[in-house]
Amino acid sequence: MVKYQEAELNDIFAALADPTRRALLARLETEENLSISELARPFHVSLPAVMKHLDVLSDAGLIARQKTGRTVNVRLNAEPMEHAMEWLARYQRFWSHKLDQLAAFLEQEDDDATKIEKKQDRD
Amino acid sequence: MVKYQEAELNDIFAALADPTRRALLARLETEENLSISELARPFHVSLPAVMKHLDVLSDAGLIARQKTGRTVNVRLNAEPMEHAMEWLARYQRFWSHKLDQLAAFLEQEDDDATKIEKKQDRD
Repeated sequence: MVKYQEAELNDIFAALADPTRRALLARLETEENLSISELARPFHVSLPAVMKHLDVLSDAGLIARQKTGRTVNVRLNAEPMEHAMEWLARYQRFWSHKLDQLAAFLEQEDDDATKIEKKQDRD
Repeated sequence: MVKYQEAELNDIFAALADPTRRALLARLETEENLSISELARPFHVSLPAVMKHLDVLSDAGLIARQKTGRTVNVRLNAEPMEHAMEWLARYQRFWSHKLDQLAAFLEQEDDDATKIEKKQDRD
């Protein structure tokens, strides 16, 4: 089970490590169902290169391809990304901790300023 | 700027695509500052292989190494993961949408059950 999850995470993170693949996913996020040629059009990459990227995305479970007659349509399947998010969420406390420290520091500054103001009012 | 962010995301996602590298990060999450030999101990990987993994993690900005005398200490630097989380968050609506649909479905089931109960009470 853990082995399966590890392999799944390997595939997802590797699929997301390429800017063209991320751009393909971003396009499928806004346009629901595209043929491969429509999907490939804005990219300065050959159609075979796009096909290879789609294979990687498909192996990671991030897209689904469906053949209708002579065209293959591609749609986004974002669910596996949830597992990547869950993995990253474990580390979230490190950067939110830094934000907390900053908030505490600013609050302290604010407190000090109020005390000085009050002291000045009393004097 | 965007090019820089793209390159940063490539490095982060590629660094996370390996189970040994993820395990190294997980170890540094619980133990704050470890020498390379302490860090490498639980892994069934050669020290040179661990060093290579640490290079990849360091290039992605996910760890920092500091030399003190003859030992090199390694600590986690989780902040860049926030950018990976932000990239993934854009797709969150796809899986939360599915959860919403499930919640709506269960609510509807519940509503129908209440209606049937009320009807039975009236009859």
